[in-house]
Amino acid sequence: MRAAQYLPVLSWARSYGRAELSNDLMAGVIVTIMLIPQSLAYALLAGLPPEAGLYASIAPILLYAIFGTSRALAVGPVAVVSLLTASAVGQVAEQGTAGYAVAALTLAFLSGSFLLLLGFLRLGFLANFLSHPVIAGFITASGILIAASQLKHILGVNAHGHTLLEILASIAAHLHEVNWVTLAIGFSATTFLFWARRWLKPGLLRLGAPAALADILTKAGPVAAVVATTVTVWALDLVEMGVKIVGEVPQSLPPLTLPVFAPDLLAALLVPAVLISVIGFVESVSVAQTLAAKKRQRIDPDQELIGLGAANIGAAFTGGYPVTGGFARSVVNCDAGAETPAAGAYTALGLAIAALALTPLVYFLPNATLAATIIVAVLSLVDFSILRRTWDYSRADFIAVSATVLVTLGLGVEVGVASGVAISVLLHLYKTSRPHVAEVGRVPGTEHFRNVLRHDVETAPTVLTLRIDESLYFVNAGFLEELIFSRLAERKKVKHVVLMFSAVNEVDYSALETLEAINHRLKELGVGLHLSEVKGPVMDRLKRSRIVDGLNGRVFLSQHDAWTTLIAEASE
Amino acid sequence: MRAAQYLPVLSWARSYGRAELSNDLMAGVIVTIMLIPQSLAYALLAGLPPEAGLYASIAPILLYAIFGTSRALAVGPVAVVSLLTASAVGQVAEQGTAGYAVAALTLAFLSGSFLLLLGFLRLGFLANFLSHPVIAGFITASGILIAASQLKHILGVNAHGHTLLEILASIAAHLHEVNWVTLAIGFSATTFLFWARRWLKPGLLRLGAPAALADILTKAGPVAAVVATTVTVWALDLVEMGVKIVGEVPQSLPPLTLPVFAPDLLAALLVPAVLISVIGFVESVSVAQTLAAKKRQRIDPDQELIGLGAANIGAAFTGGYPVTGGFARSVVNCDAGAETPAAGAYTALGLAIAALALTPLVYFLPNATLAATIIVAVLSLVDFSILRRTWDYSRADFIAVSATVLVTLGLGVEVGVASGVAISVLLHLYKTSRPHVAEVGRVPGTEHFRNVLRHDVETAPTVLTLRIDESLYFVNAGFLEELIFSRLAERKKVKHVVLMFSAVNEVDYSALETLEAINHRLKELGVGLHLSEVKGPVMDRLKRSRIVDGLNGRVFLSQHDAWTTLIAEASE
Repeated sequence: MRAAQYLPVLSWARSYGRAELSNDLMAGVIVTIMLIPQSLAYALLAGLPPEAGLYASIAPILLYAIFGTSRALAVGPVAVVSLLTASAVGQVAEQGTAGYAVAALTLAFLSGSFLLLLGFLRLGFLANFLSHPVIAGFITASGILIAASQLKHILGVNAHGHTLLEILASIAAHLHEVNWVTLAIGFSATTFLFWARRWLKPGLLRLGAPAALADILTKAGPVAAVVATTVTVWALDLVEMGVKIVGEVPQSLPPLTLPVFAPDLLAALLVPAVLISVIGFVESVSVAQTLAAKKRQRIDPDQELIGLGAANIGAAFTGGYPVTGGFARSVVNCDAGAETPAAGAYTALGLAIAALALTPLVYFLPNATLAATIIVAVLSLVDFSILRRTWDYSRADFIAVSATVLVTLGLGVEVGVASGVAISVLLHLYKTSRPHVAEVGRVPGTEHFRNVLRHDVETAPTVLTLRIDESLYFVNAGFLEELIFSRLAERKKVKHVVLMFSAVNEVDYSALETLEAINHRLKELGVGLHLSEVKGPVMDRLKRSRIVDGLNGRVFLSQHDAWTTLIAEASE
Repeated sequence: MRAAQYLPVLSWARSYGRAELSNDLMAGVIVTIMLIPQSLAYALLAGLPPEAGLYASIAPILLYAIFGTSRALAVGPVAVVSLLTASAVGQVAEQGTAGYAVAALTLAFLSGSFLLLLGFLRLGFLANFLSHPVIAGFITASGILIAASQLKHILGVNAHGHTLLEILASIAAHLHEVNWVTLAIGFSATTFLFWARRWLKPGLLRLGAPAALADILTKAGPVAAVVATTVTVWALDLVEMGVKIVGEVPQSLPPLTLPVFAPDLLAALLVPAVLISVIGFVESVSVAQTLAAKKRQRIDPDQELIGLGAANIGAAFTGGYPVTGGFARSVVNCDAGAETPAAGAYTALGLAIAALALTPLVYFLPNATLAATIIVAVLSLVDFSILRRTWDYSRADFIAVSATVLVTLGLGVEVGVASGVAISVLLHLYKTSRPHVAEVGRVPGTEHFRNVLRHDVETAPTVLTLRIDESLYFVNAGFLEELIFSRLAERKKVKHVVLMFSAVNEVDYSALETLEAINHRLKELGVGLHLSEVKGPVMDRLKRSRIVDGLNGRVFLSQHDAWTTLIAEASE
């Protein structure tokens, strides 16, 4: 049982049969075709040599197949994590140096260790601290940033920067250096890829192609662009005209590599590694959950941490860089019929063959084509509708999203996601710091009590009943005292204050002290303090304090009891 | 009206009469006597020349009297803020240099500006983000740290350090240098002050002294210690024996000083200034609120920010350092009969006279005596009972307090308070991330619904009613979906799921998306999803989304309606 929990592979490998084999093989082939250009492109985005992208897709896929719980997730380099890697490693080493690649290995190792640690501590729920709108805003903004960062490859200029403004300003400053041949290749590739994504499949279907074939041909779009532009560059000798190409890529299986454990390097990469882990985990789990729900399967977030942790440790020792479960490749994998993680193993095999045998073929592949595949991929992630949807529903969520988008574009990805989390939490605290409190009265002829401002209800001059629509804790502890005494100042006849606790889910120690202070002050004024509808868990806790015994009034099980008792006493 | 809001002085100065004058004058004299040694001592704690403590008590008191809303608060240097000042300024300048004093001015200026900014933005409620137990733990730990930091003066050795371990290790390393004469003075002064604090007043009363006289004599205890040890050092020429003394203190009114606005310095002091502002404000407001409640007065936290901000700006321009409302001096001021802030003005006058005329008298005052007054003052703040009280009431609060205490002692005051806040917030998020959800049934013969595990209630096999005891927001959005479907897996006959929203005070956008996903999945299973007892504000918001129209079920005003309707339908 315990082995099966930590090794999900045991649960599916046992019943692996011919049907699964053929489905998984098919998915493996399709995903391999898609991943070859994508892996090279994301390595470029991360500032690493192209082979690093291939290597980062081989061992990690295998390790995830053994330890992961999703049947369709495809693990490897993804756009946002590649950008975060470039940003983190760029701060400790110069791009193109050996130190840069080693720092990327160390980053993957740290990230993997952190994920494993969270997994062993079963802290998968921490991913929930990122709200959906914040994630949506972050991914949209990152998509724009990534697309902007690739423009330089399309234009054939030198440019750099971590924020949208820096990138665009840097490109503008180098605009006179535009290489027109590169631009022609980049522009054609981008246009073709956008067209293929949108129109190729419907076009093929209209021409009478079988659906499966149309599908495969569409997915092979990037491969077609790669082949066409590579051949063009080679045939017309465009390198002479300044077109930048991928160049020499070693023909090799993933090498055995070692991260570096210099204390300075570890200290500098620790925070980025945590950030990459969290963002990668959230992205991966949300993809895995979406796909699992479709097929009525379940994933286990804690075991996912272990699967992704193992994948990153694997990347660190085989020449890769930080990886996670990617959206596009996982959807393709699932659509292509993958039934078990074995599909991933076949993809890994396909990529290993590519690394060993096909790398000389990409010598003349222009960087502009890789940039085009990145731009087309990430712009499909850009979705501003979250701004309108949250605006309609809740201003607080809207503020969190728009701040995340603006900060990510304006100050970079790392600050962006950190401030998204901070703003969500602060807005939640702010909302609960001034809770909604309703004075309630009885709906005539029933035992129900409702807000006096919204419903036509009975009230009594001697009884003030307040329903507190929030848990009481340190953030709002002071609020209640002020509120009660300002209401009392307006209502001189009140002899009993009833606090209706039906929506109070917690009373922490700060709030307990406030309740004691309120009780004390009301006692001095000769006004009773009563509680009603106190939930079981809250009551259990209050009984451990002095408040219940010292209460200048009573605790009623229901508000109806409180009402009838206090009204009857008043009329005696 | 508006002027009176920003200048509380206008509201009390108008009706100022002879009775107030005599009471305030009396309080002013008593507080002056108490403050002379205390101001010198806190300056020593902050690493500043002794006169800085006097200067920091003059202009700030006057400014607070004009802008503050508490009638009893006494503003000036306090122990925790002095320690924080030493820690912050020590990072940018060497103690004893002119740069050190100027950095302290700049710190006061930054802190004052930040407080004014918060005040104009009316953000006084932010002080609530510090929970009571965290504050109690922080003050206890700071008291221990401060007392430990003063030991070196009692022993007459050189020592330093920001954490308890560092301080004790440093003292231990210098223990062979102990100056026995200094130790004799320091030990006698400390013993005398502890004795006077505890036994002098009861003793005098037993000897038949009038209560008022006994009170004044007790408060003059530190002055007596100052006089006795100063005379001893002078008469026996103990400076020759290595006793460190206060030495030359300029005879002057507070000088006009200017903070320095070098960008580097401002950047280095910004975070400490924010921390000092927040801690100072929280300490001051809680003292002011306690005293105001006693006399049935009110304070306005937003205006308090302005009062304290003005006081700190005043300190920055008159040779002082960061100040706030102190606990001990405010209580003494209040007990001594202060009726208006004018009492503070008389104290300021008294201290101005002291600064101008009395400073030559403290030339031979030994540092050990000042250290003794600090130790006795701060050890009265140490109160570990908060640990036991929170342990009894709530483990989460206990964790927050003990972490604050340990981190403050182990890593210093700044990290201590920051982690106290962070831990409180994280524990709150953690608690709400796995909310209590109760399956409820009807209490027979009533319209009440209670937890099936705690009460003897009616249930129906086709209806699953879950009362969610928490607001639904991003932190727990995922939880609900898992919970509902795991309950459904156990209860195959269920045709209707009712979510009772009586304790749901908010549904944010993340939770809305989860509700939509749950609705979608339940629809596919042919199970209805109903909501009951949705609060007005929550319903208003849900109506703006698609969830209400698309709901695979109904929204019932009361749980009783839901129950009777769904049971009736099931039996048709």
